[in-house]
Amino acid sequence: MINQTRLFDRLNRLGAIGRTQQGGVTRLALSELDRQGIDLIAEWMCDAGLQVRMDAAGNLIGRKEGRFPDWPVVLTGSHSDTTQEGGMFDGALGIAGGIEVLQSMNERGVVTDHALEVCAYRDEEGCRFAASYSGSRIMTGKHEPARLLRTDENGISIAEALEALGIDPNRVQEAARAPGSVKAHVELHIEQGSVLASRGLSVGVVTGICASSRSRITLTGEARHAGTTPMSLRRDPMAAAAAIIQMIEEEARLTGSAVATVGLIKAFPGGVNVIPNKVEFSLDCRDIDAAVRDVLLDRIVSVSRAICEERDIGFDITIFGRGISKLCAQEVQAPIRNAFEKLNLPIFLLPSGAGHDSGSYYDFCPMGMIFVRSVDGISHNPDEWSTPEDCSDGTRVLYQTLLELAGAGEGVIEP
Amino acid sequence: MINQTRLFDRLNRLGAIGRTQQGGVTRLALSELDRQGIDLIAEWMCDAGLQVRMDAAGNLIGRKEGRFPDWPVVLTGSHSDTTQEGGMFDGALGIAGGIEVLQSMNERGVVTDHALEVCAYRDEEGCRFAASYSGSRIMTGKHEPARLLRTDENGISIAEALEALGIDPNRVQEAARAPGSVKAHVELHIEQGSVLASRGLSVGVVTGICASSRSRITLTGEARHAGTTPMSLRRDPMAAAAAIIQMIEEEARLTGSAVATVGLIKAFPGGVNVIPNKVEFSLDCRDIDAAVRDVLLDRIVSVSRAICEERDIGFDITIFGRGISKLCAQEVQAPIRNAFEKLNLPIFLLPSGAGHDSGSYYDFCPMGMIFVRSVDGISHNPDEWSTPEDCSDGTRVLYQTLLELAGAGEGVIEP
Repeated sequence: MINQTRLFDRLNRLGAIGRTQQGGVTRLALSELDRQGIDLIAEWMCDAGLQVRMDAAGNLIGRKEGRFPDWPVVLTGSHSDTTQEGGMFDGALGIAGGIEVLQSMNERGVVTDHALEVCAYRDEEGCRFAASYSGSRIMTGKHEPARLLRTDENGISIAEALEALGIDPNRVQEAARAPGSVKAHVELHIEQGSVLASRGLSVGVVTGICASSRSRITLTGEARHAGTTPMSLRRDPMAAAAAIIQMIEEEARLTGSAVATVGLIKAFPGGVNVIPNKVEFSLDCRDIDAAVRDVLLDRIVSVSRAICEERDIGFDITIFGRGISKLCAQEVQAPIRNAFEKLNLPIFLLPSGAGHDSGSYYDFCPMGMIFVRSVDGISHNPDEWSTPEDCSDGTRVLYQTLLELAGAGEGVIEP
Repeated sequence: MINQTRLFDRLNRLGAIGRTQQGGVTRLALSELDRQGIDLIAEWMCDAGLQVRMDAAGNLIGRKEGRFPDWPVVLTGSHSDTTQEGGMFDGALGIAGGIEVLQSMNERGVVTDHALEVCAYRDEEGCRFAASYSGSRIMTGKHEPARLLRTDENGISIAEALEALGIDPNRVQEAARAPGSVKAHVELHIEQGSVLASRGLSVGVVTGICASSRSRITLTGEARHAGTTPMSLRRDPMAAAAAIIQMIEEEARLTGSAVATVGLIKAFPGGVNVIPNKVEFSLDCRDIDAAVRDVLLDRIVSVSRAICEERDIGFDITIFGRGISKLCAQEVQAPIRNAFEKLNLPIFLLPSGAGHDSGSYYDFCPMGMIFVRSVDGISHNPDEWSTPEDCSDGTRVLYQTLLELAGAGEGVIEP
């Protein structure tokens, strides 16, 4: 029911726009290359026999009319932009996969009760403007006008970038969909992790988007000469940081589900022969259950304090926001699981550690996601890869899921 | 026998040259401010009744003739330059203290068998040109012409800086003293650590200059998304670094004497939400016994390898040179200990974790050092401080030491 060659060919063609010498893809949000990508996607939508429109926020939408045009629409889609030196699957698979499903339905003469729409969302990555999920947030009524003023590294604001694309920044909120107008949102996306790969599975059912949190931990001690200060007379924040980072790893492991990462670290004043007086490091902490994440964070803070107290080291943590978890609705997970069963794929549930456009829908309508295996778990990198077969498996799951959600009426050919 | 007011007044006056708004002292090697400092020191030497000369390397020398002018000279001294935002005691105390001793001897009509000389060495700190102990190295026959080409951050070479001071860079090697021409070298210096302070002692006998070593350790793993990679699927070099840094601290403690410090650390690529693929950190490792330092280094390497193997992390270490230890000669330590006894000061032995001009003498003549308590162990910092009483104690020890080494002849007034 899925044309794997057409699907993968489209991924290749979209990935050629913004292809870099390093082999990555750079189509930053609202850029000229992003516009070229959107143009190509519009072409596919036309080829698929969809009604194509761009909404007031620049999101591109292809609609396959349903038997009952006034019924809430069933939505699928993902984002058109990429990171700097990203890959050709992140975002693109959800768009090309959604179009492939609707085109295949049209080719088979499938007419569903609910209309189906596939969306290419704008500005999901947040790489250019430090504002993520912009398109889907506006579509779900979460527009914040102040965000339009955020600028890229060249000083160009989101508002200016929209204007350059012929989009009126003062009217983007008109892209908001009416409450109750969407029955469900389903997103097909690469996993960007190595869980499916480690289990030998092509696809998985997403249970939700993890509750994340970012913190900065600062430890203060005493800068001293590395040669003249015996170990017993030190107040070394680097040694304390080592004890804490070890503990963070251990405590996260003990939860069995949460992840905790120290990706940035700096020692001050920073000299080979100077015991630091300050060490700062980042902490990224996530779990599908916000309560588990919070218990872990609290535990990290209390054990860190004890470690620092014993060493006479100052401890400070700034938590920059504790995200909530955005669970996939059972109303969407169930049709996805049904699709797995119908296609004889083993059902495997996993959370999404990364954020997605689907997160914007968590309080707007039932939402769910299908993950496709990432080779080696690599993403946001020129080496990002998923096989044509895996992409096809994910798209077949999406087909069956959308069919069930949209309601197969008369004339449906069950593949 | 020591004029504490005169001594401390001189330290204050020298410390006023190069005084910064932050309260520190910046008299970088061979700079105009360093020249002003040397001029002031020359004035003191004249006031002290010494024969003053500058040698071919720019070191300033004040000589108090002995009963037997042809006998090997007994040397004391320290360096005239400071670090960026350094203190007013580092180096300066050894010069002002040495002059105070010789002046006091002259005032009392003390004539020794051996001549005594006090030196103000140039370019010890190595802050400006990345070339330390230049003056004392040249004086002890360790001149390396290639070092003259090293430049400061403005591109000025040592050779050019010497020329600007009227010193011919092609003749600096003429400052080398003849082998056998120096009986002993004694240096009075602040401890720059907190060992004496922690024991409540004003002064200590230095046993030698530690064998140091600097290394760079590089750990390599896999960069992955912090959210999408479960703890069990990570190859995180940051977690491995934490385990290794903890182990380094523990292993150094276990030696009872060595010190090991991680003062610099960097994670690559360096993102809050990215598991690093590489972590690099520095290791400074020292002990008064080079063999202890080597065993510790070897132990750190082997345990690090085991930690990395278990975690499937790449391990690499570059050791940038293992210094040797430079022990203080018993021929100098004994007179220093005798001086402590004569002055009713408790004898306390400690190694020097930092390098000093005295290190240049380790293979040239017997050398020794006297340490004066640093308040809070702070040095290379505007807060560097030693009390007038402690400076005076150190200078009194230097007086008695030089008296014994130079041989008190007829007419000596024992204080």
